[in-house]
Amino acid sequence: MTAGVILSLDAMGGDHAPDVVVEGLRIAHERFPDVQFLLFGDGERLTPLLEKAGPAAAMCSIRHTDQAVTNEAKPSQVLRTGRQTSMWLAAESVAKGEAAGVVSAGNTGALMAVSKFVLRTLPGIDRPAIAGLFPTERGETVMLDLGANVECSANNLFEFAVMGEVFARTVLGVEKPNVGILNVGAEDLKGNDAVRGAANTLRQSGLPIRFHGFVEGNDIGAGTVDVVVTDGFTGNIALKTAEGTVKLYSHLLRDAFGSSIMAKLGYLLARRSLTKVKLRTDPRRYNGAMFLGLNGIAVKSHGGTDALGFANAVGVAIELISQGFNERIKEELGRLSRPEQPQAANG
Amino acid sequence: MTAGVILSLDAMGGDHAPDVVVEGLRIAHERFPDVQFLLFGDGERLTPLLEKAGPAAAMCSIRHTDQAVTNEAKPSQVLRTGRQTSMWLAAESVAKGEAAGVVSAGNTGALMAVSKFVLRTLPGIDRPAIAGLFPTERGETVMLDLGANVECSANNLFEFAVMGEVFARTVLGVEKPNVGILNVGAEDLKGNDAVRGAANTLRQSGLPIRFHGFVEGNDIGAGTVDVVVTDGFTGNIALKTAEGTVKLYSHLLRDAFGSSIMAKLGYLLARRSLTKVKLRTDPRRYNGAMFLGLNGIAVKSHGGTDALGFANAVGVAIELISQGFNERIKEELGRLSRPEQPQAANG
Repeated sequence: MTAGVILSLDAMGGDHAPDVVVEGLRIAHERFPDVQFLLFGDGERLTPLLEKAGPAAAMCSIRHTDQAVTNEAKPSQVLRTGRQTSMWLAAESVAKGEAAGVVSAGNTGALMAVSKFVLRTLPGIDRPAIAGLFPTERGETVMLDLGANVECSANNLFEFAVMGEVFARTVLGVEKPNVGILNVGAEDLKGNDAVRGAANTLRQSGLPIRFHGFVEGNDIGAGTVDVVVTDGFTGNIALKTAEGTVKLYSHLLRDAFGSSIMAKLGYLLARRSLTKVKLRTDPRRYNGAMFLGLNGIAVKSHGGTDALGFANAVGVAIELISQGFNERIKEELGRLSRPEQPQAANG
Repeated sequence: MTAGVILSLDAMGGDHAPDVVVEGLRIAHERFPDVQFLLFGDGERLTPLLEKAGPAAAMCSIRHTDQAVTNEAKPSQVLRTGRQTSMWLAAESVAKGEAAGVVSAGNTGALMAVSKFVLRTLPGIDRPAIAGLFPTERGETVMLDLGANVECSANNLFEFAVMGEVFARTVLGVEKPNVGILNVGAEDLKGNDAVRGAANTLRQSGLPIRFHGFVEGNDIGAGTVDVVVTDGFTGNIALKTAEGTVKLYSHLLRDAFGSSIMAKLGYLLARRSLTKVKLRTDPRRYNGAMFLGLNGIAVKSHGGTDALGFANAVGVAIELISQGFNERIKEELGRLSRPEQPQAANG
């Protein structure tokens, strides 16, 4: 399924680039030995790293550029002057058809601006969103936006709901996903104009979406809905707060298991089972946030992740490509914009 | 220290009122046997509950009213027509000096509106905020606003930073607390106008506040700063997301410990230590969010908490009262608005 897939990587994006990028693709290569990589970045730094990357190196082509987008760069500035940056060139290779997707751990705002400019949005979508998966008591929930759009209108949130619903149906395989809008309370009057407006539009749209209504922060972990819709400011903070809470809990557990001989022995006995919990909640497992709403696959890795996390982001992109995800989203969006007549009316 | 303290309770506020309120005050009475309670609510429902409350009943006076604020009520509507509700009368008793503080588990927006109207804000404070404590790897962090103000200006956030800093210094006893503003990235350019404006004001204010800059969601659990400042929409969602994540993690742990004989045995051996982790992260332990910025002690309990959680909220109010917290906040705010000349200039 992955034979012939070519993926572009922004080798200079992220806090620990390019080292983590090359080590990440080396790990990804073990899982997807057929996939080829175009590596955009500083050739002088990438060449020695690839020499230590073993057999993965044979699947990589370096596309040299000495320009990179910094974390501090404003998206508008990158749009004006960033056409030779590793991020831009990597995204452009997808638009040109040289690669099927792009992965970057760089500046989120810039990646969104560049992807939107270079790849364009799908018809009917004003702003793309970043979507990611959260572990829940019931399985997994997709949440969007996780940070692409700091300020969102009611209509943006409505579009996120539509895209998230399609994503849950086509990629997660949930037959009839239910959708919730993140808010400070479940009552209709709670929140700001954007969330209330989006809820009204969803209710009045006539789209066949199972709209649950408002959900609160604790509903994310509970798995109350399959799709959680929110603006990029709140979503980013909720995502990182959840990650920080998992880290705190692990820290407290580690202390607890080290606090007595009995507890240490208990840990040894339960270790196998506890490792599963750790894997289940490992933020690196959920690394690889998808930009939904673009004419092309673009995946954003956490800027501070390690090689394993970056490899997971690469895996997300490869799976979206090999499943033909974007084609399915386009089909579904087309279907949603032409709602069928009710069956009874045709009889 | 608590002899003579009188606390007013909105007996009809919260999802499980009045039962949880009466059971909560019964538990609180065991910890604070000297404290007297004024119970505002439906006498016919409260009388039989108090009869089953044991010795705590002797410390309670019922102030009957048959009106209560619903969760669905708009704050503006409560301000117009809610003067005979249990919430209003409880807050009013503080303004009249009959009680030193008020605790309610009712409608947050209404409680804020009523408290602000009845108790008035402190000089120099435009909007009160809800503050709460979070467990962190380093101890505890105070975060505000947790839901009083859905939309906040830069100046609101600036005032929250000042109040939070004073709170951490006077109540938590941190000598030189550092303050962070919650944002989607640490860089100066990240975020919306409100957070960037508040950061600028803090830097240019000349106030002796140790301003760390922007922090992200994961910094809450890490304990990067002593005070986390945010708007009420984001703060409420971060709080509940953290609670939901703790619940999810506990759920996964419970499954893991039940998954094999070895794991069950491990749990038995480590149980004592694990109970400490559970207590440390129990949301009920952190129940009792404080309204900062008012001329009077007002504590908001989680609407869905149980009696133990409500008792903790009562405990928070009693401790704020017995520490003379509001006097100290007023002194500090006065001092901050009249910055002293640098020592060197006086020599």
